[in-house]
Amino acid sequence: MLKRLDHIGIVVENIQQACQAYAGLGMKVSHMLDLPTKSVTVAFLPMGDMELELLQPNATGSNIADFLKENGEGLHHICFEVTDLDATLQSVREAGLILIDEVPRQGATGRIAFINSESTNGVLIELMEKTR
Amino acid sequence: MLKRLDHIGIVVENIQQACQAYAGLGMKVSHMLDLPTKSVTVAFLPMGDMELELLQPNATGSNIADFLKENGEGLHHICFEVTDLDATLQSVREAGLILIDEVPRQGATGRIAFINSESTNGVLIELMEKTR
Repeated sequence: MLKRLDHIGIVVENIQQACQAYAGLGMKVSHMLDLPTKSVTVAFLPMGDMELELLQPNATGSNIADFLKENGEGLHHICFEVTDLDATLQSVREAGLILIDEVPRQGATGRIAFINSESTNGVLIELMEKTR
Repeated sequence: MLKRLDHIGIVVENIQQACQAYAGLGMKVSHMLDLPTKSVTVAFLPMGDMELELLQPNATGSNIADFLKENGEGLHHICFEVTDLDATLQSVREAGLILIDEVPRQGATGRIAFINSESTNGVLIELMEKTR
């Protein structure tokens, strides 16, 4: 079951410049991570009980790099925390939505699975069950 | 000052179909509104302390209709609730961000102003001060 919005993923070209722009809104970076396996650098900007995740691709050919090339900077995905990922995926499947990840995989803060954006009106949705 | 994420705006072609797709995620429509002055129908889907707003254009030539034509369905904007809109706009301006609405206007739930997405890495951001 969906519980709350965890984060909004935003693709940016230059993460230092982007952090500066969002600082203009009063948003502060809590931490940054390099994810070499995904060739992406992530900056986390908390706001209330969710956060923005700024995603800068560091190599061509990754999903994020392809998105930037095709669409430019902007909103990329939204992530909901769920209470029971396996049960949620089962009910999502039964409702006829198509999953990108049929089997959940390990994300930074828990098990995750993405839904195909064609099932959700062009919105790429991540479901995440937090590791206790 | 930014306080919390209020909503995420999503442009859809057919709001009935979209509500059905999001029902597959377990999200329920709290209410729907026709905004004839904007030629748009909005469905509100609450999740935790924020909501998704599904936006269906009802006429060509509106902002939402133009977005749909150019980009297809998908994520359109994010809205933050702020504590003092005038002070927030002033500090946003001083930080060098460009406003679409130099003077706040009346939205459905309070005074609002949009920031030019070119100032915020392709993300269209709405700031909203709730009417008490």
